[in-house]
Amino acid sequence: MRRLSTLGLLLILGLIMMGALGNSPRPPLTPVLPLPSLAAETPEFHYFSFLTNTAFSPVERVLLFGVLGIAFAGLAYAWMLMGQVNAADAGTPRMQQIAAAIREGADAYLKRQLTTVSILIVVLVVVLFATKAMTSPQGMSDPFALGRAFAFLMGAIFSATVGFVGMRLATTGNLRVAAAAKVGFGRALMLGYRTGTITGMLTDGLGLLGGTLIFMAYGEHAYEALLGFGFGGTLLALFMRVGGGIYTKAADVGADLVGKIEKDIPEDDPRNAATIADNVGDNVGDCAGMAADIFESYEVTIVAAMILGWASFGHIGVLFPILVRAIGVIASIVSTYLVKAGDKGNVAEAMKSINFGFLVGSAISVVGFLVLGYFFLRFDEAHISLDKLTAIKALPAWANWGVSGLDMRPAYSCLIGVILCVALNKVTEYFTGTEFSPVRGLVRNCETGHATNIIEGFAVGYESSVWTAIVLCSAILGSAMVYSGENALFVAYGVAMCGIGMLTLTGNTISMDVFGPVADNANGIGEMGYDREEMGEANYKEARQILADLDAVGNTTKAVTKGVAIGSAVIAAVSLFASYITVIGSGGQGESEAIPAGLFDHVAGLLTVSSPRVFIGMLLGGAVPLLFSSMTIRAVGRAAFLIVNECREQFRDKAIWEGTKKPDYGRVVNICTSSAQTELIGPAFLAVFTPVLVGFLLGPVALAGFLAGSIVVGQLMASFMCNAGGAWDNAKKMVEDEPRNLEANTGKGSEKHKASVTGDTVGDPLKDTAGPAVNPLLKVMNMVSILAVPLALQFDSETVNRVKEGAAKFHFPLPEKFAVSPINTFWMVTVAVCLALLIWAIRQSHREKA
Amino acid sequence: MRRLSTLGLLLILGLIMMGALGNSPRPPLTPVLPLPSLAAETPEFHYFSFLTNTAFSPVERVLLFGVLGIAFAGLAYAWMLMGQVNAADAGTPRMQQIAAAIREGADAYLKRQLTTVSILIVVLVVVLFATKAMTSPQGMSDPFALGRAFAFLMGAIFSATVGFVGMRLATTGNLRVAAAAKVGFGRALMLGYRTGTITGMLTDGLGLLGGTLIFMAYGEHAYEALLGFGFGGTLLALFMRVGGGIYTKAADVGADLVGKIEKDIPEDDPRNAATIADNVGDNVGDCAGMAADIFESYEVTIVAAMILGWASFGHIGVLFPILVRAIGVIASIVSTYLVKAGDKGNVAEAMKSINFGFLVGSAISVVGFLVLGYFFLRFDEAHISLDKLTAIKALPAWANWGVSGLDMRPAYSCLIGVILCVALNKVTEYFTGTEFSPVRGLVRNCETGHATNIIEGFAVGYESSVWTAIVLCSAILGSAMVYSGENALFVAYGVAMCGIGMLTLTGNTISMDVFGPVADNANGIGEMGYDREEMGEANYKEARQILADLDAVGNTTKAVTKGVAIGSAVIAAVSLFASYITVIGSGGQGESEAIPAGLFDHVAGLLTVSSPRVFIGMLLGGAVPLLFSSMTIRAVGRAAFLIVNECREQFRDKAIWEGTKKPDYGRVVNICTSSAQTELIGPAFLAVFTPVLVGFLLGPVALAGFLAGSIVVGQLMASFMCNAGGAWDNAKKMVEDEPRNLEANTGKGSEKHKASVTGDTVGDPLKDTAGPAVNPLLKVMNMVSILAVPLALQFDSETVNRVKEGAAKFHFPLPEKFAVSPINTFWMVTVAVCLALLIWAIRQSHREKA
Repeated sequence: MRRLSTLGLLLILGLIMMGALGNSPRPPLTPVLPLPSLAAETPEFHYFSFLTNTAFSPVERVLLFGVLGIAFAGLAYAWMLMGQVNAADAGTPRMQQIAAAIREGADAYLKRQLTTVSILIVVLVVVLFATKAMTSPQGMSDPFALGRAFAFLMGAIFSATVGFVGMRLATTGNLRVAAAAKVGFGRALMLGYRTGTITGMLTDGLGLLGGTLIFMAYGEHAYEALLGFGFGGTLLALFMRVGGGIYTKAADVGADLVGKIEKDIPEDDPRNAATIADNVGDNVGDCAGMAADIFESYEVTIVAAMILGWASFGHIGVLFPILVRAIGVIASIVSTYLVKAGDKGNVAEAMKSINFGFLVGSAISVVGFLVLGYFFLRFDEAHISLDKLTAIKALPAWANWGVSGLDMRPAYSCLIGVILCVALNKVTEYFTGTEFSPVRGLVRNCETGHATNIIEGFAVGYESSVWTAIVLCSAILGSAMVYSGENALFVAYGVAMCGIGMLTLTGNTISMDVFGPVADNANGIGEMGYDREEMGEANYKEARQILADLDAVGNTTKAVTKGVAIGSAVIAAVSLFASYITVIGSGGQGESEAIPAGLFDHVAGLLTVSSPRVFIGMLLGGAVPLLFSSMTIRAVGRAAFLIVNECREQFRDKAIWEGTKKPDYGRVVNICTSSAQTELIGPAFLAVFTPVLVGFLLGPVALAGFLAGSIVVGQLMASFMCNAGGAWDNAKKMVEDEPRNLEANTGKGSEKHKASVTGDTVGDPLKDTAGPAVNPLLKVMNMVSILAVPLALQFDSETVNRVKEGAAKFHFPLPEKFAVSPINTFWMVTVAVCLALLIWAIRQSHREKA
Repeated sequence: MRRLSTLGLLLILGLIMMGALGNSPRPPLTPVLPLPSLAAETPEFHYFSFLTNTAFSPVERVLLFGVLGIAFAGLAYAWMLMGQVNAADAGTPRMQQIAAAIREGADAYLKRQLTTVSILIVVLVVVLFATKAMTSPQGMSDPFALGRAFAFLMGAIFSATVGFVGMRLATTGNLRVAAAAKVGFGRALMLGYRTGTITGMLTDGLGLLGGTLIFMAYGEHAYEALLGFGFGGTLLALFMRVGGGIYTKAADVGADLVGKIEKDIPEDDPRNAATIADNVGDNVGDCAGMAADIFESYEVTIVAAMILGWASFGHIGVLFPILVRAIGVIASIVSTYLVKAGDKGNVAEAMKSINFGFLVGSAISVVGFLVLGYFFLRFDEAHISLDKLTAIKALPAWANWGVSGLDMRPAYSCLIGVILCVALNKVTEYFTGTEFSPVRGLVRNCETGHATNIIEGFAVGYESSVWTAIVLCSAILGSAMVYSGENALFVAYGVAMCGIGMLTLTGNTISMDVFGPVADNANGIGEMGYDREEMGEANYKEARQILADLDAVGNTTKAVTKGVAIGSAVIAAVSLFASYITVIGSGGQGESEAIPAGLFDHVAGLLTVSSPRVFIGMLLGGAVPLLFSSMTIRAVGRAAFLIVNECREQFRDKAIWEGTKKPDYGRVVNICTSSAQTELIGPAFLAVFTPVLVGFLLGPVALAGFLAGSIVVGQLMASFMCNAGGAWDNAKKMVEDEPRNLEANTGKGSEKHKASVTGDTVGDPLKDTAGPAVNPLLKVMNMVSILAVPLALQFDSETVNRVKEGAAKFHFPLPEKFAVSPINTFWMVTVAVCLALLIWAIRQSHREKA
């Protein structure tokens, strides 16, 4: 079993997905697809019907094209910045050599990653298309079959592009930043930040482009294509996050264990064979992984908002989130361009400038939302006839500003989202920043040794997750309260719009995040590549100080954005709950068939926390993030072990140790690359197959509990791990900045420093591998659940009967074929395969050696 | 604010509880109490009506007295063992001196603890009595007012007694074990185990006595008295657990930091001023704390089973759990008496004997359940007329064994409980035992240093909580499936009976747990008190080896029982959900008014995971165990800091360092005692006031989510902390057992050993303070929620209206005064006071110094 190759496993994964997404041998109900009998009631489908459909006003058509234009503007801005970065001075040949080595490693990793993943993607595209086309009366020409498959492909490709380009640019930018540091602080900061902005604007632009194109093509039938789009992005983000996370920390821990601890040489010492891999890892994990992760959140929130917007406010509800995103793109363009500092700048000035940019972006967004809302959120008789907005005329003054037909509530939810984003940044900053008491408490605890530092880190991490939870709760509560009195779909739309608002400034958020590894790498290039003699001592020192300062800035900005990443996962997951219920309530047809509010409440009522099945689901769902973390942590350990051995062996070569011979960086890079590929399979299996197993074994009701439990525990654990790790990291930096005095137990080399290094090393896999990987885990489980539940539903007689009961009561026509299915071969094969793969995944995480 | 004394704070706590449990200034609904209008419908109440009520057959009356007899038999057995232990050889005067010091410290702590707590208890008794009597037409003579107050007092006193007597006996037993070790292994083991059994049988006996007496006195009206009984025990357990946990780990960490690390002297070295406090701590934390904790579980599960038994199976349903418990007492008596070993025994033999005892107990219980069920669970026409058991005649053969009227399902649930108990023990043993791969993996990771040991501990702990969750889920699922097709109350009864089955062998479980600290202390007395010369070298070594072996056995048995403790908290909490819903559905009257199944489902449906309010509650509920852990961990740190300073100061006295002068043990004991008292207030506030605040601010629906979230996260975190801590502890022991060889990096003093000590020290506050304290936390929050929800309900218009809607539909007469109340002074005062106290608690946990 253990000898299964990556490729083989991915093929199995593809085949299983085919099974899970396809139909059972004797199909009792059509998954996701509206049945012919019902579809016949709707008028014939045309692509791009918004051009002719009279429900769209000419203004709205123009707006849609306008959004498309803004999406391209965002991409053009990214292109322009790319030109600026490429045109910048690329430093000395020696520096270029090092940067080239880093880039080569990163390319090799991504190439391998994408090659393997692309096979899976192709398989899934075929599955998604074929299963739909086979059951459709239109056969291969069914536009929804094409739509679902194509959107999935687009989501995956966009996600991969963001990761790939972002990482490539980062490996270009790091060199430029190192070269610019010789000129001055301001230029280096600007180049580094703009390198990040390129990825940020790619995310913004591609996300907006995808959502808008899908809506233009499919209009009100966009549901399935949107789900496909979200699923594509999410799956890829999971691979990039987990693979990148394992890569980066295996390289980091391996390099540190041999370099810093065994050999007592500084980080980035060119004699250490793992040093290039370590720098590659920063790009792979923090650029590619994080960018794909946030792109996915960007996608999933817009998918949720568009689906719910259609169900609640009709097509105005769909257009509004797209337009809000367009405002966000403009705000990001303006505000990121403002980030700069003087030539003699320092950490404080840089932080001030970056924060100022964020503030300007927020201000533009807030004003934009209100103006847009005032002119756009008007509902006339035609909309009210949708039978959803009967109360729109009776809104209180705070909601309609005294204007009849105006409904500003969606704009308010977006505002709450912006506030949430800022608040999450602040909470993260408080718990991981060097100026605040949590990190200072850790430094104090380092004095009494390794153990007290770790214990205090637990206390800090636990507490930080509590405050993150409180902030998230306040935002969800606020969004829900805006719609209090309305039915559950509106409330869900409010939460989804909060997610849209939260990710408005994605351009800035990713800029801040990517700036971290770029500055880190630039510092590494400086350490390895500056020519001290040629530069002169004063220049050298000054340039190195600039790079060190930028590195510190990058550490803070990178840490801060992690709060937003996990927050967005929670918000997206909460708003997708409404889709989940609609899929069950409509007998597996999905959100394309809106169900009556009474039926919605009836189905929602089945998912009560007092039901033992829901509770069991919650407990199991809560357990998954822990098992997932346990797996990824162990994977890092195994990979690091291999690297330590390789480095030790290379150090035995005296020529390498004396610095006369270049170590073979490539071998370590190869180890990292192949370890990351192998090790991500187990956790990926867990993410994909656990929800399928729970759905089939315990039913859709338990699966709902499973999702809820996983979100709650996932949020708390992710915050705990990321913030504890960030705090330990910065505590170590503070100890290192102390004057070195072994008598007083301060500074590098002291016992206190050793204790702080232990904390940092413990925190590394928590904050860069396990913690952030929880975000895509939650979202993949959510997507898989929504896609798998129509199939699992038929085997749960109790739920089927309760749905039928409700449908009869609220006069909803269920699909004719909707009925209980006895346990059949399809059920048994699915359960057996899921079980086997999960057992394999757990066993493989117990291996002692890689 | 920070200068508030313990007493003052407890008085405030009492006053607040008075507010929370009492009525608002203008009482719109009577909490918990059935209203006069409804009460009038039921016949007049008489104490001990089971003697005259024709619904009880003569056999049942006899059985009730029989149970009472068995409860006394359990107590008599404890008394007999107490005689045995007291009569055993008490060793040399030097040993007695040390044991006396330990006992003195323990007494001082418990006295201070009980004095402080008793004030709160008295206040609460008055509150519980007065609030009921004031609103009752019968005034002061209302039997339910008396019952609730008296049962609360009884629960608290019983819980305190178990803790107090258990701890006193442990301090008697440790000396006897140390003396018996000179004679032989078998005798020492038997004495130690029987010391534990005394506490175990006290728990069994008192728990059974309390439940039976309440049922005898109140019959079908026992609901409120039972809740009071449970609340009394739970509140006391929280204080004992948190206080004891802080005490024991502060002393342990303090003693280790100064003794082992700074001064490099062995544990229990008599020169170390903290050594007596360390031994006291073992008793305070592991005997008193754990015994009170399990007693509470024992109480709460019987409370839940009796309440639900009445609602589902009528009085047979109430009697059955009592009878099952009686069987458990008999099984424990027989099986604990069997535990013995030969004079030349070793660790393996001891474990075998203890496990054999457990096995025999399980076998007796299982046979007992089936026999009892077969003869007792017969339902005739009279029962079926209760309108609950219409389907009893149509049961399948597996449920009625082909006998019409027989229903073996409650017995099956108990069986599942026994299996659950054994399975939890096995899971805990696997993850913390030295024979299995998790601990061996930690030992391997110690080779590469502190950080890798800690990281691997994370992976082990996370995974252990996953398996604990899976085991718990299987048991809940099994219990629910036994009743599949029945209404939710039956399902809840099944889960409650699973809890009853699980704690059947409480006698054995507590014996195993208390054996830990007794053996640990005996080892300490041996180290400090044996006279090497007088005993002769061979004898001395042999006796010391016996004590070391027993200590190892005790470590394992103690660790193993922690899984059962947290499991029981989860099961009790899940089964109490039904009560929670009934309280809401009946308009705040509580379980004494059974509500129709349709109304139950209607109210349960409000608690859907898809509701943002429920989800917010879940997230907040999940955050509480983390905040609680963060607080208790910090409390240990602060108290340990004080102890370190005290010990350092005493070591400066040369006479003490040279061993010619006895250190002042009392000063350290005093520090521990007062720190534990002060530090437990913050966490206790969190446990009591967070649910009240959530209920009042966000409503009963959010509070239900809150409970669910806290249980899920609480279980996972408690298992994580207890098992990771246990695994680190045993990994350290394994390294210490290696041959000492600094070259090969093995054994004491090596770098590997240092890394293992770090792991152990990190694990200490997790496994002995934060982790186990989560159990009473969950149960206190549950009890407070059930008691507070009738008051909070009136301020939540949405829920009130939904309940009214449901009540009208299912023709349930709500209390006349049941109506929405606008926000009034009472609401504002409650919210303000809760907020203020919680903010105080959080601020105080941030203090740097004690």
